Amino acid sequence: MSKKLTSRAEDYSKWYNELVVKADLAENSAVRGCMVIKPYGYAIWEKMQAELDKMFKETGHQNAYFPLFVPKSLFEAEEKNAEGFAKECAIVTHYRLQNDPDKPGKLRVDPEAKLEEELIVRPTSEAIIWNTFRGWVQSYRDLPLLINQWANVVRWEMRTRLFLRTAEFLWQEGHTAHATKEEAISEAELMNNVYATFVEKFMAIPVVQGLKTESERFAGADETYCIEALMQDGKALQAGTSHFLGQNFAKAFDVKFANKEGKQDYVWATSWGVSTRLMGALIMTHSDDFGLVLPPSLAPNQVVIVPIYKSEEDLNAITEVADSILSDLRAKNITVKFDNRTTHRPGAKFAQHELQGVPLRIAIGARDLANGTVELARRDTLTKEVVPLDSLNEKIETLLKDIQESLFKKASDFRNEHTTEVDTFDAFKTVLETKTGFISAHWDGTNETEDKIKELTKATIRCIPLDGKEEEGVCVYSGKPSKRRVLFAKAY
Amino acid sequence: MSKKLTSRAEDYSKWYNELVVKADLAENSAVRGCMVIKPYGYAIWEKMQAELDKMFKETGHQNAYFPLFVPKSLFEAEEKNAEGFAKECAIVTHYRLQNDPDKPGKLRVDPEAKLEEELIVRPTSEAIIWNTFRGWVQSYRDLPLLINQWANVVRWEMRTRLFLRTAEFLWQEGHTAHATKEEAISEAELMNNVYATFVEKFMAIPVVQGLKTESERFAGADETYCIEALMQDGKALQAGTSHFLGQNFAKAFDVKFANKEGKQDYVWATSWGVSTRLMGALIMTHSDDFGLVLPPSLAPNQVVIVPIYKSEEDLNAITEVADSILSDLRAKNITVKFDNRTTHRPGAKFAQHELQGVPLRIAIGARDLANGTVELARRDTLTKEVVPLDSLNEKIETLLKDIQESLFKKASDFRNEHTTEVDTFDAFKTVLETKTGFISAHWDGTNETEDKIKELTKATIRCIPLDGKEEEGVCVYSGKPSKRRVLFAKAY
Repeated sequence: MSKKLTSRAEDYSKWYNELVVKADLAENSAVRGCMVIKPYGYAIWEKMQAELDKMFKETGHQNAYFPLFVPKSLFEAEEKNAEGFAKECAIVTHYRLQNDPDKPGKLRVDPEAKLEEELIVRPTSEAIIWNTFRGWVQSYRDLPLLINQWANVVRWEMRTRLFLRTAEFLWQEGHTAHATKEEAISEAELMNNVYATFVEKFMAIPVVQGLKTESERFAGADETYCIEALMQDGKALQAGTSHFLGQNFAKAFDVKFANKEGKQDYVWATSWGVSTRLMGALIMTHSDDFGLVLPPSLAPNQVVIVPIYKSEEDLNAITEVADSILSDLRAKNITVKFDNRTTHRPGAKFAQHELQGVPLRIAIGARDLANGTVELARRDTLTKEVVPLDSLNEKIETLLKDIQESLFKKASDFRNEHTTEVDTFDAFKTVLETKTGFISAHWDGTNETEDKIKELTKATIRCIPLDGKEEEGVCVYSGKPSKRRVLFAKAY
Repeated sequence: MSKKLTSRAEDYSKWYNELVVKADLAENSAVRGCMVIKPYGYAIWEKMQAELDKMFKETGHQNAYFPLFVPKSLFEAEEKNAEGFAKECAIVTHYRLQNDPDKPGKLRVDPEAKLEEELIVRPTSEAIIWNTFRGWVQSYRDLPLLINQWANVVRWEMRTRLFLRTAEFLWQEGHTAHATKEEAISEAELMNNVYATFVEKFMAIPVVQGLKTESERFAGADETYCIEALMQDGKALQAGTSHFLGQNFAKAFDVKFANKEGKQDYVWATSWGVSTRLMGALIMTHSDDFGLVLPPSLAPNQVVIVPIYKSEEDLNAITEVADSILSDLRAKNITVKFDNRTTHRPGAKFAQHELQGVPLRIAIGARDLANGTVELARRDTLTKEVVPLDSLNEKIETLLKDIQESLFKKASDFRNEHTTEVDTFDAFKTVLETKTGFISAHWDGTNETEDKIKELTKATIRCIPLDGKEEEGVCVYSGKPSKRRVLFAKAY
């Protein structure tokens, strides 16, 4: 067994990095900033994908696939968007290697094989998709277009961390086209809601829905909706965004339609995405010093059975009981694994499943067989109890629900305890230095104040909460009048 | 309605290109050689993915994800493989754009942002994966590694065609590592079998399983297994390959393990893949001059219901019947769509569903309601019949099975009729000029003869069939002795 994780109290960042690798979720690769998502990590991502995909389809969206590359001339067509990504994009300039005349056995870029126009590896696909939509939309009958794509994207980030910020990441990007502004705004709101529902219900992470300020908005958007979550170290994490793009892309790519009156008008757009970054949120919200803690909804194995035996005879008897548990639980759509590897001792198996966050562990030994019981251990609370075999199935069903709910409750309590209303800049700074978390404060609505606060404290405006009430107040920094509180935090 | 397709007899290639676009499967993009897979085409691909993924998991494989980029030094580590792909790879050389000082509002590659080492966009992932496997394998206990990846890959092909040959395509690539040669060979055979089962059972396309000759083998493989299908124009299409890679990649990337005796040995490897090229095979095997014909197993909608009405009242009555059919069929896991669009007339709907290959179409009019019947049309045979409502569900279930089977039978009959044994080179050439298809002939086993035949006839050896019998003969070209027949054909 590898030695214990660094504790969160000792070094939160180190704890996270160690956990991701030791729990077999992901690792760094030979390509700077690009990760390998390992089978166990990928199995969690697949469960997230499956749920999201179902929710997208239930809300009328269809999947499609668009090219990995964006020609430079398309990339730069929507200026704000291009500017937003120009500083961190991977660029394909050549299409052939040749033998290196100076280094036998080595290859080099063939200078003759230069592309006429450079290709940008998509950092996001608005440009290539809106260039395609032009051919798909003639009249209002062709609208709305409700498209989603599951894809890899590349942003050449300089400082990377597994799942949280990587040069290549996996995501889904929704791109929709509408006849009216109102419909597009509703779509952007709907999808932000879908994200909130998914993250709260399946990932057991409470989120605040809100709007981004102008400076934090997606490049090319008129309005960015977001869901913001709070991690255990008191830093916020943007878990998903949904953009109302106005007619910016339609104008840049000349996507017009004939409305019911036969008049030509530009189409209204949205885009929305969540990524493998959600894996980072999942890990940082629930896990502890012993390793990963997974909500049952997303655990590749919800239950694991470990046999404890000295003789072949014991193992056979235990296997018989395990098989019956397996078939009972599978009949209830509970994922369960019988860990009967002969290469590992029970202690090592316990440690591995604890590290990998399996919600429930059943241990069966010879004495259990005699008593008609098993030992049931719960990962989130680290508690154990002896359960009679005849009530096991029901117990497990109840516990899985309970774990899902109590993880959400625990995270909600943490988030609520770490959301502080402040009315002075001194109090603002004190919160950041002591308890951290979200700070709810009045802001005068200007970029200058936002920038100044960021410069002084590193805290940014995470969002203007959608459920915030109108309330007369004064800006915590400038003292100018303000009509509502916004949420500040240091963020990932 | 758009005008009719070019017929297959008139111009097969044009028929294919038109069909792919008109049936809303895919289209060309602004990026040379890269396609857009449209929602209807992607829905078919998703069904294929789902079935294959299930089969991979049932055979013990796990999904993972590896970087899009391969550093040049890793790419060239396995020489044959590097050589095989060097001539057609997209190369990232820079990571930033900047404002073009000569052209206001335009961007250019920032010459300061040159990568230290060029990155190849993966044409296949052996290099990056085996470089990763080195860290995953220490002892025989870590083996086998049974990994699959769903991904996009790029091969800078000069002549491209939608689905059949595109610069970027989607695929899955399996990569496995084993302790023994025998186990790796079994794995390569098993996965070729999985492909054959999938293609025959779900795609309703008969295939020949075989081995590739040395010159047609995957670069870096010791042996390539393949499945070969025959298209309606008599050309063969390689539908999937499974490679036994020997220890070539293990040696290139130094992947060793301690065997049970504690001795260090290189790991044995396989890789296997199928791609969106299968979409091309699916289209070309079954479709006709009226459009796409889909096997029910892969049809996004197996049944479509079209209402025929003059009054609102009729529509309401039809809708009631349709709703009951919908819920009955869905209860049987049959995918069905009620096409109640008010923007299109029934004739246009009929034409669209025919073009898009929906296996069964139900039309319901006012007279049908009075008679308690519907009109049921079958896409593959273009036959119609009147069916009483009370036997409709059963009828549909039977027909869907029948369509699946009869498409396979039709394609098998065609393949068998277009497989010709020849014993002279004159006969060989005559077959290619007249009936085309597979030619079963003796070959002397040399590269020279293979090359010469290709040069003279454009036919290549598609495979050495696995089920071929030993049979004394003489090479159809050189007259030298041969022990078994191989399959020649012109190919995609």
